[in-house]
Amino acid sequence: MDKIRVGLCGLGTVGTGVVKVLESHQEQIKHKLGCEIEINKILVNDLDKPRDIVIDRSWLTNDPGELVENEAIDVIIEVMGGIEDTNQLMERAIQNKKHIVTANKDLMAVHGQKLLRLAKANHCDILYDASIAGGIPIVRTLADGLASDHIEKIMGIVNGTTNYIMTKMTDEGLPFDQVLKEAQDLGFAEADPTSDVDGLDAARKMTLLANLAFKMELNLDDVDVTGIRNVTQDDINFAESLGYTIKLIGIASMDNSKAEVSVEPTLLPKDHPLALVKNEFNAVYVHGEAVGETMFYGPGAGSLPTATAVVSDLMEVVRNIRLGISGNTYIDPQFERQLKDYNEKFSRHFIRLEVNDQAGAFQEITNVFSDQAVSFAKILQLPAEKEGTAEIVMVTHKISQEQLLKSLAELEKLTVVIRMISHYRVDGEE
Amino acid sequence: MDKIRVGLCGLGTVGTGVVKVLESHQEQIKHKLGCEIEINKILVNDLDKPRDIVIDRSWLTNDPGELVENEAIDVIIEVMGGIEDTNQLMERAIQNKKHIVTANKDLMAVHGQKLLRLAKANHCDILYDASIAGGIPIVRTLADGLASDHIEKIMGIVNGTTNYIMTKMTDEGLPFDQVLKEAQDLGFAEADPTSDVDGLDAARKMTLLANLAFKMELNLDDVDVTGIRNVTQDDINFAESLGYTIKLIGIASMDNSKAEVSVEPTLLPKDHPLALVKNEFNAVYVHGEAVGETMFYGPGAGSLPTATAVVSDLMEVVRNIRLGISGNTYIDPQFERQLKDYNEKFSRHFIRLEVNDQAGAFQEITNVFSDQAVSFAKILQLPAEKEGTAEIVMVTHKISQEQLLKSLAELEKLTVVIRMISHYRVDGEE
Repeated sequence: MDKIRVGLCGLGTVGTGVVKVLESHQEQIKHKLGCEIEINKILVNDLDKPRDIVIDRSWLTNDPGELVENEAIDVIIEVMGGIEDTNQLMERAIQNKKHIVTANKDLMAVHGQKLLRLAKANHCDILYDASIAGGIPIVRTLADGLASDHIEKIMGIVNGTTNYIMTKMTDEGLPFDQVLKEAQDLGFAEADPTSDVDGLDAARKMTLLANLAFKMELNLDDVDVTGIRNVTQDDINFAESLGYTIKLIGIASMDNSKAEVSVEPTLLPKDHPLALVKNEFNAVYVHGEAVGETMFYGPGAGSLPTATAVVSDLMEVVRNIRLGISGNTYIDPQFERQLKDYNEKFSRHFIRLEVNDQAGAFQEITNVFSDQAVSFAKILQLPAEKEGTAEIVMVTHKISQEQLLKSLAELEKLTVVIRMISHYRVDGEE
Repeated sequence: MDKIRVGLCGLGTVGTGVVKVLESHQEQIKHKLGCEIEINKILVNDLDKPRDIVIDRSWLTNDPGELVENEAIDVIIEVMGGIEDTNQLMERAIQNKKHIVTANKDLMAVHGQKLLRLAKANHCDILYDASIAGGIPIVRTLADGLASDHIEKIMGIVNGTTNYIMTKMTDEGLPFDQVLKEAQDLGFAEADPTSDVDGLDAARKMTLLANLAFKMELNLDDVDVTGIRNVTQDDINFAESLGYTIKLIGIASMDNSKAEVSVEPTLLPKDHPLALVKNEFNAVYVHGEAVGETMFYGPGAGSLPTATAVVSDLMEVVRNIRLGISGNTYIDPQFERQLKDYNEKFSRHFIRLEVNDQAGAFQEITNVFSDQAVSFAKILQLPAEKEGTAEIVMVTHKISQEQLLKSLAELEKLTVVIRMISHYRVDGEE
């Protein structure tokens, strides 16, 4: 086999980038793989649309069958987006023994496990590194059980839009709504930002990463998700004064064969490697037993980084074809799905309360916590805006989610407590 | 070929780690490669030394010939250290068509280019990712011309000892000598710390990285090297007050087909991703044309991270054998070695002067700079310890090395200038 033929589904900015990267790197690819890669067909909606690049007109088609049922084609690159129709098309492709490279995170989040199993049964590969964090080869890093060793914890900034918003709120003191609007005007955030700001996009990616890291089949429903809509400038300022930065962090951890996956606004020490990941950048921090701490930082999206990642995955597919190990990329879950119960999830927490500023109030509150065996690393009390009220800001030592929830429920009952303003996870320190 | 046989040179902590990783990952390796890896012989000094691991006694030998001239062996893993003798042994191995995986940075720095050419001529691979920064797969990232695209700049913290020292000096306000002694007591720094603290070790690694990134054969002599011995607490404090952190940074950049490689104490903005890389950690920041900014962060050394990196390289060698593309890993330099002249090297600089605190002194000094068309982003003047003297701290806009050196030479001639206290490169900002 001295030539691998590719069918490209989609010729938007990423698809165009893929064509360019393949053309400009022909020699290097041949050198690296010992064979050539050739684009055979490109699936487009509009055959006559003017395009940025010079393309052999005979490559273009609007009939998906010319790709997925074409015997000459070995690999399908899917960069057209969409979920249900795309899923059906990919299933047809796999049944016709095509390998898949995709940059489509929504597809992978919804149908990924099913597609991966179907591909394995057909001895085909599905590679999807470009779908997680364009410029960061994190799937490859995690999928290689050796490089990644026994992984104990992953912390990720895997959504560029929310990281951009949190950065602007923190560095420029702007409110959430204003930053969101700016991000939408700049094209960083979509008109309907729900999937980003409510943490769903990050949760999908964390599910995929956790499955790989822990070799366990976790679902989107297993992720505790909280978005960033309710983070206020006051939260950011109090966190800052205690030495923390607030970021939307995905955390997947494993203890005693039980997993925990969450996405939530989290306080990190200002000198944690993830705290400096700004704007639309992504980063994934991995703690492995042998390797210790590693972090991968790069652009989360963008047409060129994504196209480059797609071509890297394509090269991996070709390598596997030539090694005769296609379909081995997907590793069947080795461990039974087991999730931590709420009394097994431990972390530190940041808690803000508004209270009546009266004698004994502070003691009533600390009694509630000490009844739950909750102790504190840091406590601030300061007058609140409204006369006669005060604000208490606390950072706990490590406690279980059970201890947290029970404490919060008891606090609600106290008459001195006016309201719970906010509470966040604190992570990234011993 | 359903089994690849390995000869392991050296059974210290890294070698022992390699044996352990190979044993505990047999299944995964077979799955990933479609063949098995087996250790055939281990070269040791002392056959009878008690060891941490259970090893088949028949594997051990103290005769190098049993490895490098053994027809059954396909790959030599070199984790025994040393330069000249080791080089000769590796040459013999390559002449006998063995592939090499090495964690030996000194060997690669001194004889790397020659060994790589010899290996290529013999259709053998030499992989050495473990030699640069144990836990970071940076050689692989750079060697893959696609993932790394057209690389414009690399900035690296590639020496753990000096980063540990700079971190302690910065965070704890301790003087260089005291921190060095501590590092030696803890085993982080060697009894003779010259190669670390004077920047040679970092320069060797930057040479290897620059060769890969720019596909140009650069030598150690092409690197401008300044170590950290002369960095004082005052330098660190002034840098801090202007918003910078001082780190020992290796920089390789390419403009108009001309390269520049340096290792020197450098001021980085406190919010640069490299500024937070602390203690003995390493990180390599890569700026590529397509991918943009990426950074890889991890442990610089340590026996387990290094053993893991060695096994990853070994797997790559095996993949290449099975693909029939061995010897292609080394890419011949594609570009003629061209270095920037001193009027083509541009950066910002931090300059500290001690001056007589007399009328007109400041103007005399600024006149010198404006004669060289040097302008400033930041200037501080403050009284110095000695009565009648003052200190001036400046950060220039981007200037050439020529402008810098001419300005400094002119300043020396002024009677108002008592002494040039220090000057450093400033990088990582526009």
